[in-house]
Amino acid sequence: MQTVSENTCFGGVQGVYSHASTACQCDMTFGLFLPAEARDGPVPLLWYLSGLTCTHENAMTKAGAQAWAADHGIALVFPDTSPRGPGVADDDDYDLGQGAGFYVNATQTPWAPHFNMWDYVTEELPALLTDKFAIDGDRQAITGHSMGGHGALTMAMNLPGRFRSVSAFSPICNPTASDWGRKQLTAYMGDDETTWQRHDATVMMGRTGFDGPVLIDTGSKDQFIDLLRPESMAAAIALRRQPATFRLQPGYDHSYFFVSSFIEEHVAFHAQALWD
Amino acid sequence: MQTVSENTCFGGVQGVYSHASTACQCDMTFGLFLPAEARDGPVPLLWYLSGLTCTHENAMTKAGAQAWAADHGIALVFPDTSPRGPGVADDDDYDLGQGAGFYVNATQTPWAPHFNMWDYVTEELPALLTDKFAIDGDRQAITGHSMGGHGALTMAMNLPGRFRSVSAFSPICNPTASDWGRKQLTAYMGDDETTWQRHDATVMMGRTGFDGPVLIDTGSKDQFIDLLRPESMAAAIALRRQPATFRLQPGYDHSYFFVSSFIEEHVAFHAQALWD
Repeated sequence: MQTVSENTCFGGVQGVYSHASTACQCDMTFGLFLPAEARDGPVPLLWYLSGLTCTHENAMTKAGAQAWAADHGIALVFPDTSPRGPGVADDDDYDLGQGAGFYVNATQTPWAPHFNMWDYVTEELPALLTDKFAIDGDRQAITGHSMGGHGALTMAMNLPGRFRSVSAFSPICNPTASDWGRKQLTAYMGDDETTWQRHDATVMMGRTGFDGPVLIDTGSKDQFIDLLRPESMAAAIALRRQPATFRLQPGYDHSYFFVSSFIEEHVAFHAQALWD
Repeated sequence: MQTVSENTCFGGVQGVYSHASTACQCDMTFGLFLPAEARDGPVPLLWYLSGLTCTHENAMTKAGAQAWAADHGIALVFPDTSPRGPGVADDDDYDLGQGAGFYVNATQTPWAPHFNMWDYVTEELPALLTDKFAIDGDRQAITGHSMGGHGALTMAMNLPGRFRSVSAFSPICNPTASDWGRKQLTAYMGDDETTWQRHDATVMMGRTGFDGPVLIDTGSKDQFIDLLRPESMAAAIALRRQPATFRLQPGYDHSYFFVSSFIEEHVAFHAQALWD
């Protein structure tokens, strides 16, 4: 693992690190914010999964999460959104290939064998973090934006006991039921729709729900809202009687101006579960 | 004036606008955050002047100032750092030409007649803002980062009565006394050093000081600190007995991770003066 940069930030350290990934078979880069408390021992960890076209850097510089993570004494990790590099397949569309890993393991050509973001985020990176940094692996929570909200919700529901709380900003809620989502699921995982199901947050809410608190915010003026299908998720939450807060925030769109406006509440929500 | 974008943000609106500038003889773009209170009438305005290589966008997306401006009910304006466009002179160096206007009026070829950032920020843009938006021109304050800290301090001291308070992050404090600063002052204004003096914050502190509160933060690990010369400014403040808070923040560098860590305090500092 190499240190790309370390900047003092809100009394802690905002670092960027790269490492040779086994899961993605390429070098991967991630951001990690450690609060001052990490100097004295392991701290809880909040995952932030980013959306389409993002790298590890977008949320790290635009979401404003470090202020609140520092207040609550929790770490933040910002993984990249896909494998990258000259030897990694790509696509001209913004929603496929590099920057668009969808937090799945690809089984289809040309995306296999590099596009294994599910294994990277759920197995390889957590092991690296708890090995190399003062991170308490027993206290993890997860959030994300758009495609990253999809990743956060599906990982939280597929891995019972891993995360104490889950939240999402403008998540992709029901990709198996939209032409847009079906395009990506087919590209990465092929035509067998049974393999898609665990990567659909609405389906997973219907199947298992989440054993902990859930917070979902979407802007009422989100320009992609027809693709996100929050209505499916809202119905699934209600049908399951899942303890959750589901909000449409008036006037907000899909941008980081929306995320930054509500990040304080999301970090506080997770901090309550992490320090409980 | 054209609206480039408007995003709901912390209950207000983060806008980006462009207009044909008379001062710079080209199109100029700026960011403006208006808090919710601006719907009911004019609000106070805090200027944020950015540093070398920045556009209107950097601070708008990375500093995290909107959260606190919304809390205090004040507007934020983020001007660009130079004229731009294919007809505007440029230089291969990062510290001259486009992105490096230094908040002066250039008299020298090839920078005249476009590089008039002093007139743009002190005359043209304030007139536009109070004309087109719910901005109270009698309640203005100014801050900035690096080259923008230099701009904020020199404008505040050259325009008595204009700004109620001034602050700066990692400002260029004494350009007339460094080879680096002398290069730019010569390029834009020529060899007559008398024209440089009002564009040196340390010189202006010695000459006039500021009739209001001053707050200056610099990181103790700032990688450009030898060029910034904060020691000159600290001495000038002390010699004048200027009411001011001058801080070296332990461990911080020159980045936006530093700015965002202390922006809450700076906005609160200005809000106190603006609402007094």
